[in-house]
Amino acid sequence: MSTKTNPGNYFEDFRMDQQIRHATPRTVTDGDVALYTALYGVRFAFNSSEEFARTLGLPRAPLDDFLAFHMVFGKTVPDISLNAVANLGYAQGRFLTPVFPGDTLSTSSTVIGLRQNKDGKTGVVYVRSVGSNQLGETVLDYCRWVMVRKNDEDAPAPEVDLPNLPDAVAPADLFVPVNLDVREHDDTVLAGSDQLWDDYALGEKIDHVDGMTIEEAEHMIATRLYQNTAKVHFDAMLQKTSRFGRRLIYGGHIISLARSLSFNGLANAFKVVAINGGRHVAPTFAGDTIYAWSEVLAKMDVPGRSDVGALRLRTVATKEKPCWDFPVKSADGNYDAVVVLDFDYTVLLPLRG
Amino acid sequence: MSTKTNPGNYFEDFRMDQQIRHATPRTVTDGDVALYTALYGVRFAFNSSEEFARTLGLPRAPLDDFLAFHMVFGKTVPDISLNAVANLGYAQGRFLTPVFPGDTLSTSSTVIGLRQNKDGKTGVVYVRSVGSNQLGETVLDYCRWVMVRKNDEDAPAPEVDLPNLPDAVAPADLFVPVNLDVREHDDTVLAGSDQLWDDYALGEKIDHVDGMTIEEAEHMIATRLYQNTAKVHFDAMLQKTSRFGRRLIYGGHIISLARSLSFNGLANAFKVVAINGGRHVAPTFAGDTIYAWSEVLAKMDVPGRSDVGALRLRTVATKEKPCWDFPVKSADGNYDAVVVLDFDYTVLLPLRG
Amino acid sequence: MSTKTNPGNYFEDFRMDQQIRHATPRTVTDGDVALYTALYGVRFAFNSSEEFARTLGLPRAPLDDFLAFHMVFGKTVPDISLNAVANLGYAQGRFLTPVFPGDTLSTSSTVIGLRQNKDGKTGVVYVRSVGSNQLGETVLDYCRWVMVRKNDEDAPAPEVDLPNLPDAVAPADLFVPVNLDVREHDDTVLAGSDQLWDDYALGEKIDHVDGMTIEEAEHMIATRLYQNTAKVHFDAMLQKTSRFGRRLIYGGHIISLARSLSFNGLANAFKVVAINGGRHVAPTFAGDTIYAWSEVLAKMDVPGRSDVGALRLRTVATKEKPCWDFPVKSADGNYDAVVVLDFDYTVLLPLRG
Repeated sequence: MSTKTNPGNYFEDFRMDQQIRHATPRTVTDGDVALYTALYGVRFAFNSSEEFARTLGLPRAPLDDFLAFHMVFGKTVPDISLNAVANLGYAQGRFLTPVFPGDTLSTSSTVIGLRQNKDGKTGVVYVRSVGSNQLGETVLDYCRWVMVRKNDEDAPAPEVDLPNLPDAVAPADLFVPVNLDVREHDDTVLAGSDQLWDDYALGEKIDHVDGMTIEEAEHMIATRLYQNTAKVHFDAMLQKTSRFGRRLIYGGHIISLARSLSFNGLANAFKVVAINGGRHVAPTFAGDTIYAWSEVLAKMDVPGRSDVGALRLRTVATKEKPCWDFPVKSADGNYDAVVVLDFDYTVLLPLRG
Repeated sequence: MSTKTNPGNYFEDFRMDQQIRHATPRTVTDGDVALYTALYGVRFAFNSSEEFARTLGLPRAPLDDFLAFHMVFGKTVPDISLNAVANLGYAQGRFLTPVFPGDTLSTSSTVIGLRQNKDGKTGVVYVRSVGSNQLGETVLDYCRWVMVRKNDEDAPAPEVDLPNLPDAVAPADLFVPVNLDVREHDDTVLAGSDQLWDDYALGEKIDHVDGMTIEEAEHMIATRLYQNTAKVHFDAMLQKTSRFGRRLIYGGHIISLARSLSFNGLANAFKVVAINGGRHVAPTFAGDTIYAWSEVLAKMDVPGRSDVGALRLRTVATKEKPCWDFPVKSADGNYDAVVVLDFDYTVLLPLRG
Repeated sequence: MSTKTNPGNYFEDFRMDQQIRHATPRTVTDGDVALYTALYGVRFAFNSSEEFARTLGLPRAPLDDFLAFHMVFGKTVPDISLNAVANLGYAQGRFLTPVFPGDTLSTSSTVIGLRQNKDGKTGVVYVRSVGSNQLGETVLDYCRWVMVRKNDEDAPAPEVDLPNLPDAVAPADLFVPVNLDVREHDDTVLAGSDQLWDDYALGEKIDHVDGMTIEEAEHMIATRLYQNTAKVHFDAMLQKTSRFGRRLIYGGHIISLARSLSFNGLANAFKVVAINGGRHVAPTFAGDTIYAWSEVLAKMDVPGRSDVGALRLRTVATKEKPCWDFPVKSADGNYDAVVVLDFDYTVLLPLRG
């Protein structure tokens, strides 16, 4: 291994409280937005139209929240997950200052937990990653944990230190963009639905109906756009000898597809404010057709706001199986074989005035 | 079917003179333009170069006319053609105020004709759709008709009411962009050809020579860019049980490919001003190689202009068959099996000064 | 052949000292930059971040040098290489004024050499091509030579006239962007590596480790973005009857992939200043996985600069073969069958202060 190339970090390279500034700051542009629209077909008017965003008090249309997420996430890969075996979970994700074209994003991470696995060959690394814009404002803040290989199996195991990660972001911690004013959101026709916060019931399930088939070119174009360098997404030759025999699709690609599909049933859920948790239940591959359904896990007031309310949603994505019967787990408690994503997040919707 | 998701309109849901405002206003950007160039390889200098567009009097390079068309069209799909069986035709399409990056487009439609089919299961809906920018200026105005399924076959048939749709847009109705001044168009080298309006003969046929093969990723990226939601383009699993067994390519994708191929022979046809008619003769699929040829149907003066003239063109696109012998119809009057598009439109070219 | 379509030039159509202005000026935008990032996954901070570029004295982030190269190159294809059999080599390429989004590029070429081949059916055409921006500043200047078919084999052979093309661009001819000031480049963390000019040794070889598999949609999207019209890249039906039976990938696509892969090992090589030579050793096709390695051919001072130094690099790209053993030529002096590109160019890196 040349000293010139990046070997990534192995489990034994991480230390509690270690701080890592990640490479490659990224100015996001209208070009990124166009590609994101073209890759997922998102239709939320808040992100699609400068005019619509202005009627809600913003200076212009912000980036789709998950586009911002992927840009922030991508930078962490060379340092955190280049030697990862599995991306295990997310918690305490909060979307803060909105991201606009022209902003420059950079990311830093802190190690908040370590636990070596019993096999002595791998361990779980917990990090909190923070994405910032060129003004130093935090745009996104989230925890994730990954299983990472050891390079030297004889390296001593660190003391087990696990972070306290609540199940969900508390309503008091939800951030509503400064100047957002949804009292003017009277145009449900342009938004694509007349169903507002008031119209969703706790426990309600929504089949998002539509399906989207993924091509190799699409997921690679997306993943490179995010400057995510994980080899498993790009190198078909290397993957031939892997467990799955083919390129794996970046899990975030499925999150974005599911969010885009969710427009059909949640058109007024215009803003993601929190990622409470999430699990990539099964890998996806080119050729898979993705479907999704959602359940309303909680209806929440947003402190101090009379114009917007929050819904905590669970969106489940499947492959090769439409979601009219809301597939998720079998009687034995295991995930149904068709489920690929189980994602728990919080969105804002306008309140009926 | 959840009340939260959009079932689309069925034939019996449409009423004469019904007005429909479509969802998802869209700010178009340089990012959309870059993707359009990358998807079709268009080379008209008027759309490719800010400098070139300025020499013709415009403030900057306008969007390719068909990119504007697809953006306006895409918005109509969830309301007009989600339950369509076939897209039957276009008429009276006029390109008005040019569209520039930064403009926000929205679309509304009016039902101008209804006729239930004899089978009682489907009917034809005629709409006039109008695309507008953020200033309320009309950028595009066109009629199309689609065959739409009935949901309730017992729903009574509406009175037959068919619009009067002339064969072509009249020369007096052609719109030339304000400030366009082609007297300065002396740079046929940069434009790519020295063949001006004067050099084309009535009845002349031009084989555009080049061919372009379509990939699944390409037509889906394009169609999502336009926020066109027709399931048949995206859901390979659903399509497995369809008549064709695979994803269908959005007909507009073929129009754009044919227009791009037509540069080789019509490089100075820099501006589309009218869609007189058009028929998607046969479906296309990923893997098809598209070729095109054109015929000059009419040479027209543009009222009040001494710098530009108009050509009414018929551009025929084929699949898997080069066009050196101008394939279109067989002796029996039916379309040749290789023909996929028969498109009738009007373009502007500079007059020899 | 219609007189309306472009037949391209054949060998007998070229004359020594002939000057050719190429069609289709092109305004480059943030959209092109986003697509370039998405197609190759480039991560050089200098091109990725407006903020980072400003710390180095530039007004904003310039386009990746090879994106500019492809834009300039693409325009030459309809006139120079539409009837080419092979793209034989490059020399004396110099990157001059940086290209920024909003610039409009155009290209002109001069014939600097001609030599008919012994078979009487083809000949080699040498051209010097110059890309300029809207201010008339040269952004790129390079020589290439291509083998072009004769249309009329009886056309007389021109006098042999070969240009004098040095092996490499001389250090005195390297152009450093005005205002570039790398003394502030103290942020090797954001750049992705702490290896600066001083840390590379003459003769050092670096395996860039990562691999990237190419899809048909990707190389066609790239090549159309550059408005490169060579039929062999796009028309699968035509290619069925060709020697290779399938679409060929534009050689420049491989150059960009190799440059992007080289980030892993050369992250601080932020600026390409010269193309000394280059050979597309073997064709590539969709499905190929590309790897790359580099050798330091020379370490050079840049006249008048104490902040940056130059490295002359040879980057070799392979297909279907990782580069840990630096494959290039066999004992018999012929290229190893896995080698597809042998590229000789010069880059700038910060000096250790």
